[in-house]
Amino acid sequence: MAEFDVLGVGNAMVDVIVHADDALLQREGMVKASMQLIEADRARELYDRLPPGIEVSGGSAANTMAGIASLGGRGAYIGKVADDQLGQVFAHDLRAIGVHFPPAPATSGPPTGRCLIVVTPDAQRTMHTYLGAGLELTPDDIDPDLVSAAQITFLEGYLWDPPLAKQAFLKAAALAHEAGRRVSLTLSDTFCVERHRAEFLDLVEHHVDVLFANERELLSLYETNSLDAAVDAVRGKCEIAIVTRSEHGSLIIAGGDTHVVQAAPVEHVVDTTGAGDLYAAGFLFGLTHGRDLPACGRIASIAAAEVISHLGARPEISLSRLIGAVA
Amino acid sequence: MAEFDVLGVGNAMVDVIVHADDALLQREGMVKASMQLIEADRARELYDRLPPGIEVSGGSAANTMAGIASLGGRGAYIGKVADDQLGQVFAHDLRAIGVHFPPAPATSGPPTGRCLIVVTPDAQRTMHTYLGAGLELTPDDIDPDLVSAAQITFLEGYLWDPPLAKQAFLKAAALAHEAGRRVSLTLSDTFCVERHRAEFLDLVEHHVDVLFANERELLSLYETNSLDAAVDAVRGKCEIAIVTRSEHGSLIIAGGDTHVVQAAPVEHVVDTTGAGDLYAAGFLFGLTHGRDLPACGRIASIAAAEVISHLGARPEISLSRLIGAVA
Repeated sequence: MAEFDVLGVGNAMVDVIVHADDALLQREGMVKASMQLIEADRARELYDRLPPGIEVSGGSAANTMAGIASLGGRGAYIGKVADDQLGQVFAHDLRAIGVHFPPAPATSGPPTGRCLIVVTPDAQRTMHTYLGAGLELTPDDIDPDLVSAAQITFLEGYLWDPPLAKQAFLKAAALAHEAGRRVSLTLSDTFCVERHRAEFLDLVEHHVDVLFANERELLSLYETNSLDAAVDAVRGKCEIAIVTRSEHGSLIIAGGDTHVVQAAPVEHVVDTTGAGDLYAAGFLFGLTHGRDLPACGRIASIAAAEVISHLGARPEISLSRLIGAVA
Repeated sequence: MAEFDVLGVGNAMVDVIVHADDALLQREGMVKASMQLIEADRARELYDRLPPGIEVSGGSAANTMAGIASLGGRGAYIGKVADDQLGQVFAHDLRAIGVHFPPAPATSGPPTGRCLIVVTPDAQRTMHTYLGAGLELTPDDIDPDLVSAAQITFLEGYLWDPPLAKQAFLKAAALAHEAGRRVSLTLSDTFCVERHRAEFLDLVEHHVDVLFANERELLSLYETNSLDAAVDAVRGKCEIAIVTRSEHGSLIIAGGDTHVVQAAPVEHVVDTTGAGDLYAAGFLFGLTHGRDLPACGRIASIAAAEVISHLGARPEISLSRLIGAVA
């Protein structure tokens, strides 16, 4: 039996969440619901113009690992923080929920990454990311023992942005397959797909077993406006491809089958940050616990529904209790 | 006309808010609803054992200033942060809402203070405070121009804890009176009253114009179990004394009069952190805007009701809009 269900590898960061209206997005030239990379200067400048916020640990794959832990799974995480206050917060929050996060040697480089998240009244989140210490993730940070100890290594597409993280990503994928494990990838963001389309196409076909994409990301990957065409395109490229479609539920594409999964009901959507991250958590938890694909989709939908019903991208209540009755 | 309505002086800090049950309080020997001072080592040790949290700017008098700003008032703040990430967060959040917070020279001393807040299911908050940079507040930080530019200088009882802050406190009070301004004090916490009872009794009688205390703090100050006796004891000691009584509303004691103010209705109490801070904000806003004492109490109650209806000790919605219709 593997020591861990899922090992997440990603850009570690702390989210700064603020509420603002669409006028602020327009004023700052922000594209709603996207993630944009920014440099330290722009991060400072933008932060100065944002309203008061709250700080919460984030990072896409780290959120997924928090979800795995909340579901009762065994998760581990590799990501780079600096030895500063936000780095301590990030490490605390991950370890406190039971995710194995090995201490990294202190770095004298950039501070812990921050993601400035503007939540508009329609619950959409618009993100500007300063990668900070994330820029220093290298192949040396990928511990082969950790990779082979996990049933699935889960990688975020965002890792394709920092120069050396890409190599770390490929090393982790290769090690996982050598150990007879599976590799999972989330495409992360439409802009991210546009930046790296050719490489992502190659990744999906040759390195990934379980792919997560939302509808817009998949359409962008295959440069089509037709969901059917995109589904046809991805089918067979990897073992399982999952397309999330917000309130329209999700599709699970495996072999010749397509499973249609309903979205779980949400009384009031507060903040959509983390919806994809927690969907992935639920799905991978199911997959590593011997559930069939429709059940994986149901657990995923419940986890996603919980996280969008409150501010922040990590579960507020025990997902394990939440799925107990229904999945 | 004064440039500022209220100048707050206090221990600047960032709150780390976690949800936990009463078992954790017992295990850690925490006294529910109190504030306890802790050293850096104990702060680290305790933090390691707490569940994941969120970080939000706090500090009693700073919360009050955020309330003043949210009500449309002109607030300024003096308090000490370090030149670190939490210090930047604290300064950002205060300035972003429009509070004047003059930059302080960088210090090589302790990091920005933290308050570890455990919120139990009954919405009570139990606080452990590491003062950090707050320990370095000295009389030199009290800018006489700022004090004389504010109608009221508002001081938190917590300032009596760091050794030199006490002198800063007395300097601010003396400067305010020299400039013909008023001095306001909140007793802050029962333990704080117990630590400094004799000095607080002297302060209230000789240096304070407007006193805020909750019922337990006032009973502790006058070492009595009778609210009537405590009210009799405080009457005439300062121009206005306000006793807050949670869901039982508040009493405003001025000259021979006692005004009874109802608590504002709250549908669901989530986190009582900041109730007293925001009550003071509403009251001082009313007082500096020519409202009569019962109206000050009504504004205060509405501001307090808003802050206990969500997590964190600062308003989430515009208090100015909230009081528009009713006060």
